[in-house]
Amino acid sequence: MGVKSVWWEEDEQGAAVCLIDQSLLPLEVRYLKLRHEQEVAEAIQSLRVRGAPAIGVAAAFGTVLSLFCLLRERNAFHPHTSSSEWGVKCISKDEIDLIGAQLHVRSAGEHLKSTRPTAVNLAWAVERMLKHMDENLHSISSTQELKQLLLTEALTIAQEDCDACLRMGELGASLIADGDTLLTHCNTGALATTGIGTALAPIYVAHHAGKKLHVLVDETRPVLQGARLTAWELQREGVPLTLITDNMAGYFMRQGHIKAVFVGADRIAANGDVANKIGTYSVAVLASVHKIPFYVVAPTSTIDLSLPSGEHIPVEQRKPEEVTTVKGVAIAPPGVAVANPAFDITPHQYVTAIITERGIIREPYDVTLQDSGKHPTIIR
Amino acid sequence: MGVKSVWWEEDEQGAAVCLIDQSLLPLEVRYLKLRHEQEVAEAIQSLRVRGAPAIGVAAAFGTVLSLFCLLRERNAFHPHTSSSEWGVKCISKDEIDLIGAQLHVRSAGEHLKSTRPTAVNLAWAVERMLKHMDENLHSISSTQELKQLLLTEALTIAQEDCDACLRMGELGASLIADGDTLLTHCNTGALATTGIGTALAPIYVAHHAGKKLHVLVDETRPVLQGARLTAWELQREGVPLTLITDNMAGYFMRQGHIKAVFVGADRIAANGDVANKIGTYSVAVLASVHKIPFYVVAPTSTIDLSLPSGEHIPVEQRKPEEVTTVKGVAIAPPGVAVANPAFDITPHQYVTAIITERGIIREPYDVTLQDSGKHPTIIR
Repeated sequence: MGVKSVWWEEDEQGAAVCLIDQSLLPLEVRYLKLRHEQEVAEAIQSLRVRGAPAIGVAAAFGTVLSLFCLLRERNAFHPHTSSSEWGVKCISKDEIDLIGAQLHVRSAGEHLKSTRPTAVNLAWAVERMLKHMDENLHSISSTQELKQLLLTEALTIAQEDCDACLRMGELGASLIADGDTLLTHCNTGALATTGIGTALAPIYVAHHAGKKLHVLVDETRPVLQGARLTAWELQREGVPLTLITDNMAGYFMRQGHIKAVFVGADRIAANGDVANKIGTYSVAVLASVHKIPFYVVAPTSTIDLSLPSGEHIPVEQRKPEEVTTVKGVAIAPPGVAVANPAFDITPHQYVTAIITERGIIREPYDVTLQDSGKHPTIIR
Repeated sequence: MGVKSVWWEEDEQGAAVCLIDQSLLPLEVRYLKLRHEQEVAEAIQSLRVRGAPAIGVAAAFGTVLSLFCLLRERNAFHPHTSSSEWGVKCISKDEIDLIGAQLHVRSAGEHLKSTRPTAVNLAWAVERMLKHMDENLHSISSTQELKQLLLTEALTIAQEDCDACLRMGELGASLIADGDTLLTHCNTGALATTGIGTALAPIYVAHHAGKKLHVLVDETRPVLQGARLTAWELQREGVPLTLITDNMAGYFMRQGHIKAVFVGADRIAANGDVANKIGTYSVAVLASVHKIPFYVVAPTSTIDLSLPSGEHIPVEQRKPEEVTTVKGVAIAPPGVAVANPAFDITPHQYVTAIITERGIIREPYDVTLQDSGKHPTIIR
């Protein structure tokens, strides 16, 4: 897979969270080097990086970056300014204690966490970073050591995500037969993760194993992740695809060609209800009526056992311009009222199986999801 | 209703079919005066005029226009040119016989009929024009009389459509309660007809009767008739609306707010299967799962008893650019394969009732549709 969505880099100018700017794809391929955690927060909010696992990794790197920034800014202050010149008390490099750094990192992490509410991987990744910091603070004695501690953890999160993608791909590919036509919604590929994707991973693994596939790609209004990102990714990898508008899914299901639906998830509640990109619920209902298996592919970091059901998952409401304009061009009359829920909830009854890196999980989800950490329910 | 979609006009330059150019709405309100039937054909093909009843009327007027053009062109030829100058045999004004005019009108009508295959009103209106001509040719003795005969018939078709809209509106409004939230797909209002619309007619009638309504408007990709036309129409009429993307319909049905779905039709087969704008089928399935009544509103000219079921209705496949671009702006990678069926078929099982100008028709459609001409099944 040639596409990298988010990674860590250090060069002569310092540390950076690097991204491919997904808001510009597919017409422009632009890479961003973000040198401040605020830029990472902005990138998450404005969908320059999106996809539940990718924003988790971006936020983990952003959390590390906040400490690099703090130390860089203080280093910059120290040699050139005095407190009187700036009218503020400049803390010397030596005065920066670990407690202050910890508070700064925590505050940056909390801000990053707040950028998008639905995908639990974002909160999960930041909380993992902060917990790791808190638990290890007693064993380190300098901010340099804290930097290293945090960076190692963020890189581990990224690597685990990459490994999970491959494993989900292998497990999910067992559900795909040679000659299948599949339907997918939104983008759940390399761009949405640090690996080969979630719901696209089984498709990539099956394709590379030589199975002949055809993928129908929902364009996924309003942000068009299907048309802009999934079509681009599949094209690059040579996977045969046909782009359709979201409202064509039922038409093609009725033709009898679609053998399975593969989608990702932004959060899975304890009973198996799935929050995912708006439109997923409609696809799930249609799949059920047409007796087509509906598979959700997501790493276990997406499972939120603290929520008993999907109705407790907060659904992000985004700005109306995403609906009323396409790439800045107006498509609706000025002043029209708009709804723009970015996600919907698919009740577990519509989910044939949830493919995680630990196994393929099926009903009863209230039991199997609880068990999935301890006893992977692998059905191959 | 202040919007007129298509009408006949004669001024000092001659006859014209007048249209509001719907391909430019809502950002530009431009009126077109088409003075040649070829321009009418182009306007139908490129969706400057659309909506099953409106294209029927446009084609009827186009058929008349072809005769006006023929006579105008021949008049223009006669005084200024001789056969030798043009290298063709110029037929003198006197030589134009009724048989020639009839052949010309027939050929123009056939061409207009072929511009779009799915909506039966187009074929129905042209055939009605040609049949009226054939049946009355014996009683007329000049091309002037033929012009008048054809124009009167086209104006009758337009007036009948207008009257049918009002009647469908009154019948359909009886199904709407004060306080209802309704869902609609595509555009089925004044722009789609020469009256107050088909599926929007009950909404207008209920609104003007003082019922408090809220309409969720599917944007209706790829051509965005909902976002561009329905939102604009409802806004002008002061009907409260919220614009949504097509893939949000299921989400809002699940919230429990939607009390009924109202859609139009491009063709209804003898068993009640309904061809309508792509996405209608998905909405119908979702409505059925959520136990929401799904109403089809269409004049009887939309019913095609010659086709036993929906699978016999030809589905127009339109060009990929409608999917890959929005107002000329690319939204997908170059070279991507695209499907663009403009319509889908909703099986009659999903249709709660068909509201025509002759009555509200319910299952068993294979009986009630056959009877609808003779014994209107009015249920109020």
